[in-house]
Amino acid sequence: MEQSRRSGGRAARQAARTARQLDSVPFLTRNLLPVEVLSDEGLALIEANADRLLAEVGVEIHGFPQALAIFAGAGAEVEGSRVRFPDSLARALITASAPRRFTQHARNPERTVEIGDPHLVFAPAYGSPFVRDLEGGRRYATIDDFRNFAKLTHLTPAIHHGGGTLCEPVDLPVNKRHFDMVLSHVKYHDRPFMGSVTAPERAQDTVDMVKIVFGSEFVDQNTVLLSLCNANSPMSWDYNMLGSAKVYAENNQACLITPFILAGAMAPVTVAGTATQTLAEAMAGMAFCQIVRPGAPVVFGSFASSISMQSGAPTFGTPEPALVLFVIAALARRLGVPFRSGGNLTASKVPDFQAAFESAATFLPTIQAGANFVLHAAGWLEGGLTMGYEKFVLDADQASMAAAYVNGVDLTDNGQALAALLDNQPGQHFLGNAHTLANFETAFWRSRLADNNSFEQWLEAGSQAAESRAHAQWKQLLADYEPPPLDEAIEAELAEWIERRKAAFPDSDV
Amino acid sequence: MEQSRRSGGRAARQAARTARQLDSVPFLTRNLLPVEVLSDEGLALIEANADRLLAEVGVEIHGFPQALAIFAGAGAEVEGSRVRFPDSLARALITASAPRRFTQHARNPERTVEIGDPHLVFAPAYGSPFVRDLEGGRRYATIDDFRNFAKLTHLTPAIHHGGGTLCEPVDLPVNKRHFDMVLSHVKYHDRPFMGSVTAPERAQDTVDMVKIVFGSEFVDQNTVLLSLCNANSPMSWDYNMLGSAKVYAENNQACLITPFILAGAMAPVTVAGTATQTLAEAMAGMAFCQIVRPGAPVVFGSFASSISMQSGAPTFGTPEPALVLFVIAALARRLGVPFRSGGNLTASKVPDFQAAFESAATFLPTIQAGANFVLHAAGWLEGGLTMGYEKFVLDADQASMAAAYVNGVDLTDNGQALAALLDNQPGQHFLGNAHTLANFETAFWRSRLADNNSFEQWLEAGSQAAESRAHAQWKQLLADYEPPPLDEAIEAELAEWIERRKAAFPDSDV
Repeated sequence: MEQSRRSGGRAARQAARTARQLDSVPFLTRNLLPVEVLSDEGLALIEANADRLLAEVGVEIHGFPQALAIFAGAGAEVEGSRVRFPDSLARALITASAPRRFTQHARNPERTVEIGDPHLVFAPAYGSPFVRDLEGGRRYATIDDFRNFAKLTHLTPAIHHGGGTLCEPVDLPVNKRHFDMVLSHVKYHDRPFMGSVTAPERAQDTVDMVKIVFGSEFVDQNTVLLSLCNANSPMSWDYNMLGSAKVYAENNQACLITPFILAGAMAPVTVAGTATQTLAEAMAGMAFCQIVRPGAPVVFGSFASSISMQSGAPTFGTPEPALVLFVIAALARRLGVPFRSGGNLTASKVPDFQAAFESAATFLPTIQAGANFVLHAAGWLEGGLTMGYEKFVLDADQASMAAAYVNGVDLTDNGQALAALLDNQPGQHFLGNAHTLANFETAFWRSRLADNNSFEQWLEAGSQAAESRAHAQWKQLLADYEPPPLDEAIEAELAEWIERRKAAFPDSDV
Repeated sequence: MEQSRRSGGRAARQAARTARQLDSVPFLTRNLLPVEVLSDEGLALIEANADRLLAEVGVEIHGFPQALAIFAGAGAEVEGSRVRFPDSLARALITASAPRRFTQHARNPERTVEIGDPHLVFAPAYGSPFVRDLEGGRRYATIDDFRNFAKLTHLTPAIHHGGGTLCEPVDLPVNKRHFDMVLSHVKYHDRPFMGSVTAPERAQDTVDMVKIVFGSEFVDQNTVLLSLCNANSPMSWDYNMLGSAKVYAENNQACLITPFILAGAMAPVTVAGTATQTLAEAMAGMAFCQIVRPGAPVVFGSFASSISMQSGAPTFGTPEPALVLFVIAALARRLGVPFRSGGNLTASKVPDFQAAFESAATFLPTIQAGANFVLHAAGWLEGGLTMGYEKFVLDADQASMAAAYVNGVDLTDNGQALAALLDNQPGQHFLGNAHTLANFETAFWRSRLADNNSFEQWLEAGSQAAESRAHAQWKQLLADYEPPPLDEAIEAELAEWIERRKAAFPDSDV
């Protein structure tokens, strides 16, 4: 008994360490095997169809003759602006050199992440022109909102990555926004982040800025940026996205090659058809990066949702895109590249029941499918048009449960709890059991926003719905925010460099 | 081309038939394989631990000497009120005679359900003393509320089963409520349902009533009731529950043998420990039914959630119970009995973000794990203390997506959509594609409550959150309700029988 109590004490201390770790780990590591919804034969069929699609239809490259020459040089068939890939060429180019996993460095080494199996990295939502909070409602986003979300990310252990366009700072000129966005990522959090992709020269600006932060040589030999290059579905790539990808790949920086597909509009209405097209489009983009610089890190991205066949409006959290997600995750594993998809997606305008159910119906499949990088893990509202303050902390709270989930089932002696079961008498509760006490601190995941109190306690606390509690939480977080330390010389050099670059060309909203 | 258009037409008609079917099928059939989180070795370890628990600790039987004799007669070791099962006796009794699957008949044969693999049946929430709606707030439930939920169930295609105690009609005496509840199930919907378990004589009343509806001989040879018998965790069974189980089993009616466990209080704080105890308790109950009448249908039930280790309050939608659910579903498959678990569970008092995310975080694992019967699929709020009108229709809307989900990925020619992919040119949208048009009606699951409109449309429609739309929906459903036809002679006989029984003993609130 004394023996078992002592070993309970050890287990307790160990468990407490694990808990602290879970709260501050820079990324998650899966023990659970990914969920599969198709057999190997089914997946091979989709691969064969995608290869045929790339060979027979191919991809259209808009306004980027240099890319056509690059593809031709690697053996692709180029006809006008069309590029076709005979004999599974795109696949072969990827498997020859794309890494299965890579390290994306943060300026704080403790926040550096691993992108690829068996790891899982969460990033905030990306790209919304609007923001929303309970008090102020929906409004155009500004650079102050961007900074707020950078700060909230810094304060949110479950969000491992700083993301990219946390919201569009529409108060700044389009052609110079990227300077302030990248600067905010450097100043207000110390996680890894994403660069500009709206024009190749802005991608180059991003690379130049991170060279100031990390040093030129370090950047050439290591990956510090992961940037989002979307295909122009169906089966097209444009100059800005592919040109940005070229800049990043040349500089050994990672590209998230993502077909953005609303099935029914930009792809066939079926799960297998959407997966086939996504695979084909992504392979064309990833192959391009491998030709530009063999071994440059790429992530196979998929953003697949469906449309309402009644109104044409995008829908989220529906079952078909969840199945697409499972299928493409398996295709990415077979291709041997990291996978990005999912997030807390919803069409709802407010963080209500619809928002949460749709978010969960995407987010759970995301972590089950084996996604390695999850953009839009926090904040997304209204099909991505709006970044929500309350939604951000509500999503992040739910995202924090993923750590316990992917840990899977503990079958150690402590996990089996057989001694406790055999020791406990029928009808006797376990609250005072030595095993319970030993595991007290770490036993269950704890939400920081859920209300589990009695109805009477909840009434007395003001009958608040989750949105109200979330409002109080993000306000408090921002009030308590302190910036992570940043070398003054680096900050000064960045400021000077940005000032010089901003002065070099006129403001423009294109 | 003409050929493909014609075959598109066939596909369209076929798809339209499938869609109508999905909307009104009496139960779901899985194509997807269940999600597994443990290896066979891991599951065998838990089984060995459960068998040891039953052999060494055993179960306590409260106030039911006859049950002790029944257990002893089958070879169990009885010592006082303790029953121990040597040499995996409980498991052997179950595998010898419990059916893998059974038919539960509805009074409308088109609503008859199959309980067991590969099928899935949804039933409303069960047992709340309170109801809530947006207008009236939270209040004690009445028989009128019970009737309303029976009517809503009748009008909800995604809810296949009438359930049992839709809410507690606290305006009726405790010892006579069951008459009105069973009568409501017979009158207001035509789905299968559950019987009373609060005392063996009330179970017998239920059996007598369904004999009036279905005929005595039919009831003896067929299963028309599925009733919920909860263990008194840890490791105890009481007279009322086990006595009710005995009545049902003797009459060839199905018992849902369910340990109701809040891990940390009624079981160890670990996933494996909770699964072990659940298996042990459920095996004791299912073995009892098999001794009483070999071959009587039983369902292995699990209600496992966790408690907040800070406050002791029950919590829902957390990751550990989801893992428990996956583990126990696998244990049920290995034991060869149907499995019940999950639902749309939440601790929230209102149908807000918390309610939806917690519900989804239980409901998705429920359908993924391979549950065959899902109680609490619609309406549950506040840890089961409240049945919500808005929550009922919101949950049911989400439950309707399960049909598309468990159908899995269609790899037929139509599913692959290869012809459409090869025919479509880069940059050309699929909205007008023949394949899209052919699959238009059935392409994607459609929510009846989600708002996918633009912000401006949503604003114009009154900026309603999901709860408000749900309020309008259930009101409209009840306004349009028409009862299913019921034989007048049966209705008269039931009424007369109930009147006689009610007059036979005084009202009591015990």
